[in-house]
Amino acid sequence: MRYPSGINKNYTKEIKYDNRGMNLEGDLNLTNLYYLNNNIASIYKKPTPIKLVKVDYPSRKEAKITEAYFMTPSTTDYNGIYKGKYIDFEAKETAGTSFPLENIHSHQIKHLNTIYDMGGIGFIIVYFSKYNSIYLLTIEKFNEFTTNNKRKSIPLEYFKKNGYLINYKYNPRIDYLKIIDDIYFKEEV
Amino acid sequence: MRYPSGINKNYTKEIKYDNRGMNLEGDLNLTNLYYLNNNIASIYKKPTPIKLVKVDYPSRKEAKITEAYFMTPSTTDYNGIYKGKYIDFEAKETAGTSFPLENIHSHQIKHLNTIYDMGGIGFIIVYFSKYNSIYLLTIEKFNEFTTNNKRKSIPLEYFKKNGYLINYKYNPRIDYLKIIDDIYFKEEV
Repeated sequence: MRYPSGINKNYTKEIKYDNRGMNLEGDLNLTNLYYLNNNIASIYKKPTPIKLVKVDYPSRKEAKITEAYFMTPSTTDYNGIYKGKYIDFEAKETAGTSFPLENIHSHQIKHLNTIYDMGGIGFIIVYFSKYNSIYLLTIEKFNEFTTNNKRKSIPLEYFKKNGYLINYKYNPRIDYLKIIDDIYFKEEV
Repeated sequence: MRYPSGINKNYTKEIKYDNRGMNLEGDLNLTNLYYLNNNIASIYKKPTPIKLVKVDYPSRKEAKITEAYFMTPSTTDYNGIYKGKYIDFEAKETAGTSFPLENIHSHQIKHLNTIYDMGGIGFIIVYFSKYNSIYLLTIEKFNEFTTNNKRKSIPLEYFKKNGYLINYKYNPRIDYLKIIDDIYFKEEV
């Protein structure tokens, strides 16, 4: 569809990130919904694990949780299937100029490595709010950094050189599978 | 290891199901832990989705959920990776002589079909407490039943003929991947 350039411009501006920041989780959910509805992939965010303490039953059908606590997740937040392959990733946001390693649990890194060893595809998606940019970094390149560096955070420069910039667009919002295509499903020439 | 027959017998009896029933979820979690610890597969139960309404913060670190409700899951309960393949299933228990179709959400069946269409492995595990037996039924065979029958439940007989009996044992408790091996990874002779 073609719009007069003015309308098109406004429209693009509306959906672009601005300094107010983005909703990474919401946009990833919309992206995954797009993938599902177009039969591209089936990838979901796992629910947050909750430890239940008290549950009331005000009616036969309805249960009301009155005391519960957040638990540490055992795995990453997102997983599913794409082109027959098992996909697994964690998505994080950082306000600084580097990605602090403490932002991701060590057991989540271990999990991504297990997935890689078992023949799956594992990665992290990091949104640098300061620069309004989103990068995908494979678990292989993540390991390369932690093996060769003693730093407590991965600088944006490392993402630029060893990761992949994901361009934000209207639909799908965060088209990370395009990157996965380029890395893992590129046709040999 | 060899035990005197008497001891062996008692031991076997202790770990076998009896009429008090079993803990399907707990035993599947232990099974998945066995698979993980032995580098066989990485399969997890997804947390139950909760809709949060009120959360108190009595201290800086601790969040206390004081009002929340259970939500209907979007997908099945279990997924992960085995031999490079994406695995997805739902586990249910029934006290009767057949498995009521209403025990599984229609969107969960749709989800298992999506997984199958995308090249993954989808199935259900049903524990018949009355008969103390556990069956695995592939989504393909599940569809075959619902396509050719108007019944509102799948009789045990159908599981016996078209499904696979999973023998309960000490470790792993419910070795469903042995069945998956037989169905999908059998070496051609």
